[in-house]
Amino acid sequence: MELFYAYQVQGSVAALDADESGHCVRVLRHRAGDEVNAIDGKGTLLKCRIADDNPRGVQLEVLERVPGFGVPGYRLTLACCPTKNNDRFEWLVEKATELGVDRIVPLVGERSERKVYKADRARRIAISAAKQSLKALIPEVEEPVSVKEFLQRPLEGVGLIAYCFEGERVSVTDALADVPPETPITFLIGPEGDFSPQEAALALERGYRPIHLGASRLRTETAGLAAVSAVYFKYIGKAYASED
Amino acid sequence: MELFYAYQVQGSVAALDADESGHCVRVLRHRAGDEVNAIDGKGTLLKCRIADDNPRGVQLEVLERVPGFGVPGYRLTLACCPTKNNDRFEWLVEKATELGVDRIVPLVGERSERKVYKADRARRIAISAAKQSLKALIPEVEEPVSVKEFLQRPLEGVGLIAYCFEGERVSVTDALADVPPETPITFLIGPEGDFSPQEAALALERGYRPIHLGASRLRTETAGLAAVSAVYFKYIGKAYASED
Repeated sequence: MELFYAYQVQGSVAALDADESGHCVRVLRHRAGDEVNAIDGKGTLLKCRIADDNPRGVQLEVLERVPGFGVPGYRLTLACCPTKNNDRFEWLVEKATELGVDRIVPLVGERSERKVYKADRARRIAISAAKQSLKALIPEVEEPVSVKEFLQRPLEGVGLIAYCFEGERVSVTDALADVPPETPITFLIGPEGDFSPQEAALALERGYRPIHLGASRLRTETAGLAAVSAVYFKYIGKAYASED
Repeated sequence: MELFYAYQVQGSVAALDADESGHCVRVLRHRAGDEVNAIDGKGTLLKCRIADDNPRGVQLEVLERVPGFGVPGYRLTLACCPTKNNDRFEWLVEKATELGVDRIVPLVGERSERKVYKADRARRIAISAAKQSLKALIPEVEEPVSVKEFLQRPLEGVGLIAYCFEGERVSVTDALADVPPETPITFLIGPEGDFSPQEAALALERGYRPIHLGASRLRTETAGLAAVSAVYFKYIGKAYASED
């Protein structure tokens, strides 16, 4: 099953951007009248007919809408410090999208080696990963924000921070076991140098719960994926994958 | 904590290969008499003193042995078809090693796009991932073998195959819930084109149990990692990570 991303949907008209249009018309040789499937990136599958096969701007006529297509059914924000090596973070964006995540927030911590992050490339990766794994919901990749700014936002639902706190920490699986259904979950994952004690203390003040991710020492991007997989297995790991 | 891989250990003498020796002496400027930590790759941490700081062949005197250092404590074989894109499979090798796996078997399926696979690079990745995640056990990366040859081996413990079987499949988490402690686990993960019906039927004949990996459609390497994380969370996800 092949999906196109319609960046704009107005009523029964959906538009593909230049990349998607070129792929649709030049590479796959679709023509006006062909039926194709698109996603709106917000969770709805659009069954369409090509109205205009302009290779720089394909227009689609929406014939049918399938809401909640491939949507995980949990609400998960992954707030994670991008790695020094961009590929590692972009890999995390791809894999988290495949498993299922709503929002990815690149964080800049006091100990981050990477202080600037360009989110555009990660957004393109999220789009192609969503299409590839047959999800109509494309996770939002936000512009980078400092850990302290991010923590000024009111925490919706449950917040979990992976940090080497002194004393008691609960495992991510035990922490998730206590989370009521439908509750939004936010993970805070620090940089290679970890969060600063001030950042960690602020997170606790703001209601985040300290967790650990198990007995193995994991790289930043692996920790992020382990957190997403723990949520994935809790909520939809028992459901069948769609086969179409 | 910094670890070197000692490719050869005889009695109280451990040897580093040329790469590790150069890193130890030229890059990190260690000299004879310095105390360093090494792993034997089989699960034992070696606390050593440098006896010979030859940058092409460092010799270590073993002062103390710490068995089972960072060893997951479960026995897991990941038999997985390498992806068309080598980076994706090598990424899986790195991440599976970080989480914990004993053996990685590159499989060549009837529908594999990649019919040949050079295991050397994956072995080097496994070594550096084990060192980086403070594990004395380096997973064995075998030479590639066809799915049918692999299935001729007697299945030790529990075998699980991720395949789009008609009819009933159990989720990986439910399948793992039934596995008694200490039981070796083998996962079979197919290529982009999936196993052939003949390969899948043979796996069932040989005692493999059909599983699915949840509601999301996952790439081959993501499926492999999801399988490893499910085992990781079942066995050591509740244990603390070592902080040293």
